[in-house]
Amino acid sequence: MQRLRIIVDAMGSDHAPRVEVEGVLEALREGRNRFEIILVGQRVVVEEQVRALTGGGLPMGLTVVDAPEVIEMKDTPIAALRTKRHSSIVIGLEMVKRGEGSAFVSAGNTGAMLVASTVILGKLQGVSRPTIGAFFPTEKGVSLIVDAGANIDSKPRHLLEFAIMGSIYYAEMMGVERPSVGLLSNGEENVKGDERTLEAHQLLAQSKLNFIGNIEGRDILLGTSDIIVCDGFVGNVLLKFGESVLFVLKNRIRQISYKNLFHKLSMALAYGTLKKALRTFDYQEHGGVPLLGVRGISVIGHGRSSPKAIKNMILKAEEAAAKKIPACIQKALLATT
Amino acid sequence: MQRLRIIVDAMGSDHAPRVEVEGVLEALREGRNRFEIILVGQRVVVEEQVRALTGGGLPMGLTVVDAPEVIEMKDTPIAALRTKRHSSIVIGLEMVKRGEGSAFVSAGNTGAMLVASTVILGKLQGVSRPTIGAFFPTEKGVSLIVDAGANIDSKPRHLLEFAIMGSIYYAEMMGVERPSVGLLSNGEENVKGDERTLEAHQLLAQSKLNFIGNIEGRDILLGTSDIIVCDGFVGNVLLKFGESVLFVLKNRIRQISYKNLFHKLSMALAYGTLKKALRTFDYQEHGGVPLLGVRGISVIGHGRSSPKAIKNMILKAEEAAAKKIPACIQKALLATT
Repeated sequence: MQRLRIIVDAMGSDHAPRVEVEGVLEALREGRNRFEIILVGQRVVVEEQVRALTGGGLPMGLTVVDAPEVIEMKDTPIAALRTKRHSSIVIGLEMVKRGEGSAFVSAGNTGAMLVASTVILGKLQGVSRPTIGAFFPTEKGVSLIVDAGANIDSKPRHLLEFAIMGSIYYAEMMGVERPSVGLLSNGEENVKGDERTLEAHQLLAQSKLNFIGNIEGRDILLGTSDIIVCDGFVGNVLLKFGESVLFVLKNRIRQISYKNLFHKLSMALAYGTLKKALRTFDYQEHGGVPLLGVRGISVIGHGRSSPKAIKNMILKAEEAAAKKIPACIQKALLATT
Repeated sequence: MQRLRIIVDAMGSDHAPRVEVEGVLEALREGRNRFEIILVGQRVVVEEQVRALTGGGLPMGLTVVDAPEVIEMKDTPIAALRTKRHSSIVIGLEMVKRGEGSAFVSAGNTGAMLVASTVILGKLQGVSRPTIGAFFPTEKGVSLIVDAGANIDSKPRHLLEFAIMGSIYYAEMMGVERPSVGLLSNGEENVKGDERTLEAHQLLAQSKLNFIGNIEGRDILLGTSDIIVCDGFVGNVLLKFGESVLFVLKNRIRQISYKNLFHKLSMALAYGTLKKALRTFDYQEHGGVPLLGVRGISVIGHGRSSPKAIKNMILKAEEAAAKKIPACIQKALLATT
């Protein structure tokens, strides 16, 4: 079997390229011989960072491809794609398009990744809008929220497509045969929902998906359904809210512990337990999010990604490539219509 | 000064009338002589419950008004209002309408409360849709989310009205002169948002409100703005998600502690600290939510309300009545248009 090649954007994250290089080195250690990695970025800067971390040259299985331009977080997607043809995002995705790599991973500008992936790789047949899915830790395991923020003002038909693509991705990656699909609404009853949700409910009920009906906000963390379908506006607000909960709770505990010696001592003792409980809900454990509906694999990470998150994104991209996710999604979409 | 009369639905909560009667007795103890309470419900059942708890008759300041019919949680609002004219919700609100009480408090069917309050009390001039606001604990204090779930498919103009009504309520109840207003969106930049939010942004920017622009999901718990404006679909999903976070986290800590004696002991020690940290985010501390935009005071509580929540709702209703909130909102709305 030929070894897969994963292409990694070296210039994407807030602390690029240090975080990316650290993540890549960890991924190579963990998966040695299973795959190769190509880092795309400003060659001199990237190679210097690699040398600083390895104390020597490039390790086995790692090559660097030069991309002199950098797409910044503040760049608007369309303009960036038009004017920065020699950026790591454009060059990396074009390599995937030409078959020089099996997947592209970036912690850069989400909008630019979304637009560039759609334009360069192209959409699968039957896809109106590619979607970004995000894994969310729950009491039962993990659920996948589609759409996580890529598509605002979605039509009911789009929600159905998100559900189909999400189901296939979840089935393949989590090894669950017919993942359950819940439609996020403001009440469990069929009659609850805004216009978009009410219409999407009908489409989902008529589909071949394992649709369990409406779910509510409180069902998300309980893991009531494997797939949570919603418009990207709601998905974005929810995910950002969810990320902030742990941050705020940790702050609060620190403040209380600081004021009182007994609290301080007891929390020091309990810290390990608490850390373990909170880790279950740490999105970094689950790495980046896949862009579903394009002709290739493109994984988008958080700008604040840690080396561990980058590593997890690479391992996930490799798995998605090995399982030929885009082909599976294409098959499902054609079978539906 | 004449003492205020607060009318309380005895039949609303999941554990009615016990929870209501307990809450009323606590409120009377805490606010004795400041206000009177009228409990509306099935007289025999309610009086029996009072006797069971006091060991005697009705305490000073408490009277019971008979309402033979009960609106159940499963009843649809319109049908309930039409067929159950002798229910506690209808009778209680009609008493407020006739001036026999200054406010009505119920932990019953939210939809029925919303419709009955709007129909019986009537809307203030300039209000398209009355809104339900919900207080949310933050790092800085509390923020008010409008709309918390009453209005689905709101128009941009409705979001502006929610913001005006929420600002007045917050200013009066929290003693903040010009509360800051944030518009919940999928990005801070002006250009981010779905169609409704983009248009509402323009309206808010042109208003006299202390509008600080778009806020994101992560800003909610940080307390970036005093008022958080959104459609009721998003508000409902967020609030239900928020409520579930503490529940799930407590479960998780319990599971971990159970497995390991060290974790168990350390968590037992830390429990007090943790409880204090979590309590900050306990919605029950903040009691029910006001219905804004009607000609009178109507406070809606959770079906799972505790006696403490009922007590807090009563105290809040009293404060809102003393501050003549509906008149303040009417003035602000007329000044805007």
